Amino acid sequence: MGRSTARREEILTVAGELFRQKGYHATSMQDIAERLQLQRGSLYAHIESKEELLFEIVDRAADRFLAGIEQAWREGTTARDRLRRALAAHMAVIAEHRDTASVFFHEWRFLRADLRSRIQAKRDRYEARWRELIADGVARGEFRAVDPRFAALLALSAVNWAYQWYSPDGPLAPDDVAATFAELILKGLEAGSS
Amino acid sequence: MGRSTARREEILTVAGELFRQKGYHATSMQDIAERLQLQRGSLYAHIESKEELLFEIVDRAADRFLAGIEQAWREGTTARDRLRRALAAHMAVIAEHRDTASVFFHEWRFLRADLRSRIQAKRDRYEARWRELIADGVARGEFRAVDPRFAALLALSAVNWAYQWYSPDGPLAPDDVAATFAELILKGLEAGSS
Repeated sequence: MGRSTARREEILTVAGELFRQKGYHATSMQDIAERLQLQRGSLYAHIESKEELLFEIVDRAADRFLAGIEQAWREGTTARDRLRRALAAHMAVIAEHRDTASVFFHEWRFLRADLRSRIQAKRDRYEARWRELIADGVARGEFRAVDPRFAALLALSAVNWAYQWYSPDGPLAPDDVAATFAELILKGLEAGSS
Repeated sequence: MGRSTARREEILTVAGELFRQKGYHATSMQDIAERLQLQRGSLYAHIESKEELLFEIVDRAADRFLAGIEQAWREGTTARDRLRRALAAHMAVIAEHRDTASVFFHEWRFLRADLRSRIQAKRDRYEARWRELIADGVARGEFRAVDPRFAALLALSAVNWAYQWYSPDGPLAPDDVAATFAELILKGLEAGSS
């Protein structure tokens, strides 16, 4: 990684922290420059605008979430197994990139319309993959005939909300949290459990 | 309701809208005054500070959530029934007060320490009530021997997240959403389903 790329990564990290702590609108380029001990002018050598930073943070998060469910889909052997893996992958993204996750969930709505709709398309694709995973489990006879929209929402809500309470300094590894939720959710989904 | 009380309610409503739309830090007293077509000075006749508004919005939300679970506890006859009622009550608070709910979830952390700890105490009490509800279901033999912390988190996450996707203009009434989640969650909890 060249010096310029490394600096760009640093800028993205600091911007993510500040957007989460203060909110996008309340964070200025000056705040970002100060935290990095840079002149505001030097910051503009690396990035064009505050919105570019917001977009890149949110877009990377979307890509991480998508990569997680695609891998769970490829590597999982049953619907149960895929659901477990997809929850673990989602939880790992949140646990490893908490600032980014928080910005992804809250601040993304401040993007201007054309950028927001690019993120919306990725969010829609991600949620669609979750519904497919559930619907596939129903079709295979692994899951009860649940409404895939709601079952997917329940699973996603459980792990999304973790960014509010999960602490990497606490006793639970992200995998443990995901596994415990998976167990509860799978009990509710499994065919033959009614 | 006197004129002054009515005006105060109006100020709280507008502050809630703006705090949700722009974030607490990015909203000024001037913004609130303008939206109300008031002079900034007149605003200060009704309230002391922006933080007072934030506290009152968040504190009322906390009280609504608490009242909901207390009522579910009193009026429910079984643990299943209480869980259904508690989910419906929580979902109703979010659906009826979406700005407030959003401010309750995100902006509350910007309160100064002493005010924040008063809200934290109510949040803790609310979550404790949820864990008691689950633990009671386990003790009654209605639920499997689940970890009440995680089961409560799953239920609360499902309805909390609804503030992100629920639309009062959509096809689903808040009660329908709560009932569908309750069914999925109860299937996962019920004794004899393993």
